[in-house]
Amino acid sequence: MTQPKLITMLTDFGWQDVYVGVMKGVIASIDPDISVIDLTHEIPPQDLMAGRFALMNAYAYFPTETVHIAVVDPGVGSHRRGVAIQFAGGFLVGADNGLFGGILSQVKAIAVVELNNSQYWRTPKPSTTFHGRDIFAPVGAHLASGVALKELGTEISIDSLRQLPLSQVTVSDNKIIGCIQYIDVFGNLITNISGQDLQLKQKVIIKEQLIPWGKTYSNVQEQELIALVGSHDYVEIAVNCGNAQQKLQVNVGEKIIITPS
Amino acid sequence: MTQPKLITMLTDFGWQDVYVGVMKGVIASIDPDISVIDLTHEIPPQDLMAGRFALMNAYAYFPTETVHIAVVDPGVGSHRRGVAIQFAGGFLVGADNGLFGGILSQVKAIAVVELNNSQYWRTPKPSTTFHGRDIFAPVGAHLASGVALKELGTEISIDSLRQLPLSQVTVSDNKIIGCIQYIDVFGNLITNISGQDLQLKQKVIIKEQLIPWGKTYSNVQEQELIALVGSHDYVEIAVNCGNAQQKLQVNVGEKIIITPS
Amino acid sequence: MTQPKLITMLTDFGWQDVYVGVMKGVIASIDPDISVIDLTHEIPPQDLMAGRFALMNAYAYFPTETVHIAVVDPGVGSHRRGVAIQFAGGFLVGADNGLFGGILSQVKAIAVVELNNSQYWRTPKPSTTFHGRDIFAPVGAHLASGVALKELGTEISIDSLRQLPLSQVTVSDNKIIGCIQYIDVFGNLITNISGQDLQLKQKVIIKEQLIPWGKTYSNVQEQELIALVGSHDYVEIAVNCGNAQQKLQVNVGEKIIITPS
Repeated sequence: MTQPKLITMLTDFGWQDVYVGVMKGVIASIDPDISVIDLTHEIPPQDLMAGRFALMNAYAYFPTETVHIAVVDPGVGSHRRGVAIQFAGGFLVGADNGLFGGILSQVKAIAVVELNNSQYWRTPKPSTTFHGRDIFAPVGAHLASGVALKELGTEISIDSLRQLPLSQVTVSDNKIIGCIQYIDVFGNLITNISGQDLQLKQKVIIKEQLIPWGKTYSNVQEQELIALVGSHDYVEIAVNCGNAQQKLQVNVGEKIIITPS
Repeated sequence: MTQPKLITMLTDFGWQDVYVGVMKGVIASIDPDISVIDLTHEIPPQDLMAGRFALMNAYAYFPTETVHIAVVDPGVGSHRRGVAIQFAGGFLVGADNGLFGGILSQVKAIAVVELNNSQYWRTPKPSTTFHGRDIFAPVGAHLASGVALKELGTEISIDSLRQLPLSQVTVSDNKIIGCIQYIDVFGNLITNISGQDLQLKQKVIIKEQLIPWGKTYSNVQEQELIALVGSHDYVEIAVNCGNAQQKLQVNVGEKIIITPS
Repeated sequence: MTQPKLITMLTDFGWQDVYVGVMKGVIASIDPDISVIDLTHEIPPQDLMAGRFALMNAYAYFPTETVHIAVVDPGVGSHRRGVAIQFAGGFLVGADNGLFGGILSQVKAIAVVELNNSQYWRTPKPSTTFHGRDIFAPVGAHLASGVALKELGTEISIDSLRQLPLSQVTVSDNKIIGCIQYIDVFGNLITNISGQDLQLKQKVIIKEQLIPWGKTYSNVQEQELIALVGSHDYVEIAVNCGNAQQKLQVNVGEKIIITPS
């Protein structure tokens, strides 16, 4: 068993067009021994919050030398940087737009380079619209193939990485203050407050409204709100057989307060 | 050419979330030399009949040492068993809920174990909602990697495997009695009666209605019913340019009688 | 690093059924060391123009020994031929229905065989509905595995390959005459006139209507027509925030005239 050469891909390209296949062709052209695993290509177009959340829920299940290429890139063609990040779980390759912030909130970055060595690109003149094909796929393939991080560009400060505007969880006295970090297709509000830190009995407040605490959706009547620890191990606010986002008229970033009851 | 290490995956998870990718990460973490082929991840949620039918139409095209992992699992977290089954076509891994019953109606099981040896799980404390990640993917990877079936848990009786409530085909005198085993997206009713056993001329009866026999949909007028041997080699009842399920108001399990004309 | 054994697949089968997985099972049964990359399986059913365009935009990003299997095959079961084509980019395998015409307009074919040696099929009696499984997947796997093209059938003339009814680009005096070769999901009209051949200032005429030339959609008011060189490097006619196909009521094949302004 040799050292695996493994890349994962996450994009908002969908499966209809050939974009994902073309990126894999670029990777296979550099090193045909690399395996590629699709995380998802159905991130809603340009939805950085959804991409960030998906990556954060996936990376920990992969071997520690895996290269994760992620392309949700509203700023492609503008002056945003491309980066490669080394962390304890392997490498992250993509635009410097906060997409990797969820992973890096759990596992610290070790080193970061700006991708400015065009020797490892598909072409020194990349298109303005498809850096996934021209920069991120080839750079990721070279990383998986054994090229050292520092070869790929100029080392930059970890602290200079862009963050998405998502408040951190703060704990003061007995109060935990967090926010909604992701809203799933069912309208469930997934906060950034981990279920591990909680006591058994809690009071959950959103928009000055007290949400009853439970274990499963069916602990409340249909169409009623409930707060619980969801399958992602975050505190989640849901409506039994309904849509919490619509009922509460909230969005990603909305503040959540938890206090012991 | 070494012995292939091949796993197929069939689930009702869809491609939007990272569940499928995460299962592949768990497999690659155990043995990066395993190849994974997706059968489909678009089985309608919790539709055991559709999953059973898809598996039955796919397994025979794979090498005989393939491990087929299937996760359509309405009972996850309840007391239903997880099982691994050895058969002439390789191995089947998933919940004991009848999903493999179609395959096993064509090829007999050789041995079955209940998956109760947590040494081969991802964690001894699996989540209650995602046994695909925590039990079935790692067990399947170990099987593909060469671990013996009997290491994975306690041997149980083949006859104790759960069956979906689908009547067997019976033949008495000249009558063949079967039932609908699957209804496709077009509303075509696919029975469990194989086309191989039939004479050239047949009478097909469903709900006391006589269906004309033909070779292709266009043998009857538009919106008319027709019975024929479909591409899956089962007797199928269809409506030319229409929907047989809606026209006949039937469901999976409905009785079909075939007599020589 | 050994010589890669790489196959790409493009079909109109979608991901819901197990057809794509079954073709991969047939390939793995012939040679488990072959890697398969999906280009797309969401070509609209039987849409040869869309399949032709997708292939043309993907092949160049793959290693030069890649085998491209494409199955968009309205004529399956009729007398249309199956073919394997050698070209500088590798091999093309599928029905002789024009699907590969876009690639072959850019890179000339070297040799073509009709697939009539059933020794390399899955079965000497292929189904009438699924040549992807019974002929094209096994033939493609044997090619990727090292079988010589001429073993697969009778050599036929390159000129005898069927073409889709798409007029060639002609240049006379200062006029370039081409046509629409593809209409994307947004209703943008992609012509077969390459952007490389153009001067900076152009006049674009479709249906006797003069379309203003620009660089990006937003160079015109919303709902206004614009012509530009699109991301595929072809001249494209679009409506800013609108649908050019609906506005102009045109289809694939419609004539486009370009003259210097």
